[in-house]
Amino acid sequence: MLDGALLNDLGILADWKIISGDSAFFDVTKKIHNGLQGAKLELTAVEKSRYEDTARANSLALTEEYDVVFIHDPQPAAILPFHGSGKARWVWRCHIDTGQPNPEVWQYCRGSDTSSVLTSAAPASASNLGATSRRCLEVIASGPGPELRQDPLSNEWVIVAPGRGRRPGQVAVPTTACPFCPGNEALTPPSLLLLQDEGAADAWFVRVVENLFPIAAGGGRHPPTFEDVLFRSTPAVGAHEVVIETPHHDEEMAMRGPAQLALSLRAYQDRLSTLMARDDIRYVVAFKNKGAEAGNSLPHPHSQIIGLARVPQSVHRRLQRARRHFRASGVCLLCDLIQAERHKGQRVILDQDGFFAFVPFAPSSPTQILLVPLRHSPSLAAASEAEIAAMNRCLQLLLSKIDAALDRPPFNLILHEAPKPWRLDPALHWYWELIPRLTQLGGFELATGMSVSAPSPEVFVRDHIGRA
Amino acid sequence: MLDGALLNDLGILADWKIISGDSAFFDVTKKIHNGLQGAKLELTAVEKSRYEDTARANSLALTEEYDVVFIHDPQPAAILPFHGSGKARWVWRCHIDTGQPNPEVWQYCRGSDTSSVLTSAAPASASNLGATSRRCLEVIASGPGPELRQDPLSNEWVIVAPGRGRRPGQVAVPTTACPFCPGNEALTPPSLLLLQDEGAADAWFVRVVENLFPIAAGGGRHPPTFEDVLFRSTPAVGAHEVVIETPHHDEEMAMRGPAQLALSLRAYQDRLSTLMARDDIRYVVAFKNKGAEAGNSLPHPHSQIIGLARVPQSVHRRLQRARRHFRASGVCLLCDLIQAERHKGQRVILDQDGFFAFVPFAPSSPTQILLVPLRHSPSLAAASEAEIAAMNRCLQLLLSKIDAALDRPPFNLILHEAPKPWRLDPALHWYWELIPRLTQLGGFELATGMSVSAPSPEVFVRDHIGRA
Repeated sequence: MLDGALLNDLGILADWKIISGDSAFFDVTKKIHNGLQGAKLELTAVEKSRYEDTARANSLALTEEYDVVFIHDPQPAAILPFHGSGKARWVWRCHIDTGQPNPEVWQYCRGSDTSSVLTSAAPASASNLGATSRRCLEVIASGPGPELRQDPLSNEWVIVAPGRGRRPGQVAVPTTACPFCPGNEALTPPSLLLLQDEGAADAWFVRVVENLFPIAAGGGRHPPTFEDVLFRSTPAVGAHEVVIETPHHDEEMAMRGPAQLALSLRAYQDRLSTLMARDDIRYVVAFKNKGAEAGNSLPHPHSQIIGLARVPQSVHRRLQRARRHFRASGVCLLCDLIQAERHKGQRVILDQDGFFAFVPFAPSSPTQILLVPLRHSPSLAAASEAEIAAMNRCLQLLLSKIDAALDRPPFNLILHEAPKPWRLDPALHWYWELIPRLTQLGGFELATGMSVSAPSPEVFVRDHIGRA
Repeated sequence: MLDGALLNDLGILADWKIISGDSAFFDVTKKIHNGLQGAKLELTAVEKSRYEDTARANSLALTEEYDVVFIHDPQPAAILPFHGSGKARWVWRCHIDTGQPNPEVWQYCRGSDTSSVLTSAAPASASNLGATSRRCLEVIASGPGPELRQDPLSNEWVIVAPGRGRRPGQVAVPTTACPFCPGNEALTPPSLLLLQDEGAADAWFVRVVENLFPIAAGGGRHPPTFEDVLFRSTPAVGAHEVVIETPHHDEEMAMRGPAQLALSLRAYQDRLSTLMARDDIRYVVAFKNKGAEAGNSLPHPHSQIIGLARVPQSVHRRLQRARRHFRASGVCLLCDLIQAERHKGQRVILDQDGFFAFVPFAPSSPTQILLVPLRHSPSLAAASEAEIAAMNRCLQLLLSKIDAALDRPPFNLILHEAPKPWRLDPALHWYWELIPRLTQLGGFELATGMSVSAPSPEVFVRDHIGRA
């Protein structure tokens, strides 16, 4: 892609659109890709009509006027014949070495297409645009949408998100400019939430945008499930958003001023409420991955919020356990656990301001830490201003503590909230989970699903974390 | 510890013993440790008697004669008064700065102790031993034994293995010499299995030894369970063994000659059968972690075999799923799945010699690969010589393939066998699981237990692994 920040500096409006299609469509575009590289193959009539039908549908989504439209890769290449060029100059950046293409495939792609072609040997630059090109559109393909698939050996559901990466472990990220820094807003989708300084309209404190490569997307209360016994799947209905927690590229959560921290956590609350209000979303989780070892791919401080139409099975098992405890004892499990941990004392990290942090007796990750509000509530949504302020102080204290004790470790920070229809269930209690990432799963953990903690949680607290 | 290889080169027999105790004992030794460093504290009569009772019990285990006995750390320090020095010279390597000790604690430790003291400032060397010291014993403490603990929030059991590491992610390993190379056998416990060249009695092809820092240990069919509702625990009864797969430090599985590979896998079979024959073990898993990202801490090629008294819950869920499928259809789930995957074709990596490898439709890790024997059997134990030979070829082909395709990735290789009492259950089918480690778990996976695969398994096979 072009450098959105650079284009904006030049006074050019850089916009973009993502087109989509089903996996059959992407099977055809892969064949076209190979053909453009010279592979001997033939496109069937069925394949061509799949390709063209998808292009026609996508062409309808391009409604605005531009001076230049860049089409990336073969996937959106057939949009122009259906859309018409309008007043724009169209450029096909095919990103493929087409020095010796398969002639039929080349003819099929270029036959009715009047755009300029830039192959991989001729990178675009802003100077290509000319002095009068001020509105620029880039069209890229997202790949087929995310889906839930059920593992027939375990009955567990997993997510397959084809658009997220070309190779496992390599998430597609821009390399030219930080897409989360101010000035580069055009590199990300439009804001879903913008917390701004009222005095300066173009400055912002927190932005929330859609994730370009979602693991859940789209809507609908009753998506189709493909009921083959061994290969059950269904679209991963839901939402996947990115909370850009601060405009400052290096301002980590532990070092952030209280006002900025409060704003980023207010964004969590706002988006959680908005997503939970959708009738096709039942479960929402907010989390932050810091560091590559924690699954993070972009350094600018950000979090993610994911909403799903289905409650994940392990979440469901935990909440059923809490509900059984409540039915048997009349008391919330987490409230009981706080009392018991406080009595034992040896795993407690923090007990102040209405919050309680400890390493669990039986950690589900070797370095798991829970931060729990003393006041019982299934959801952060009901927290008062004072509680939020206390929560922020405790979160920051905890993060500073692990930064100092464990030498600024990579970590995951997760907000656990009650899913629907248990949003007001007295058995459930919201909490934060913090996992400094110091260990790797080995074959035993992968084979058995059992966590292995060494040293014990008691020694981990006594010798490494200490009491706040 | 002293360098066992060096001592052996000098013609000195270097032996060692591990002493143990319960967590109350280790609480006292931690206090002694702090006191030796100068902390103001007092040992109670109860604490002293705990310490001395454990020392007396451990002293009974030292039955052989030595010229020099090295006692490491405060934990085994009280053994000498109970054991008596015999003809040996005793040296206490206390590994602590005792420049300004708490006088009462120092007096307590040294009062009746006639050993020499080497503090942290005076490292031992072989020259300390003198020309006539030919039999040398080192005594170290293992810490309290591994235990199973139940997470009250999920009801899942986890393992806490206090002796395995001083800090999460740092497994205690020797740094001076490779303990798995020939000549360094004294650095590991005695052989449980030794596959040797009959012509050369001191050469070996494969050695199996106990893991020095086990995650399961000890015996007993009915270990006590501590039934506090929120803090249930029980000793992690079982075994934890290390298979040293080859005498050659750099001979990875993918490059090994067929004879050596066959021997290492014969060791798996032998030890699996031996452990499964114990009436206090119901589940055994054999696995190999290659590379630090896969949880490996020592480069010399080795595997691990772990036996547990309890079947892990996720293993139990999978086998119940397989049994339900069998009851409903009369056919093994994995046999059915092979047919279905072969029919689809797009996730198949290998289909030859009676073995079938594929990336599952709904992978439980983004890069999961299964290698399954076509002949239905719950256990590798029943495999014929010819099947084992074919299995070895297929395993090696698969490992070479991922080495080439994914640039020698870290990986986990796991052998899944039917646990007891389902060792002959017609619903169960043994298989290998291979997980190249290219991805990291992020907050979503940790919060929900759901795996996220990107790209899809079909694209992973088509673009990255290919067909063997």
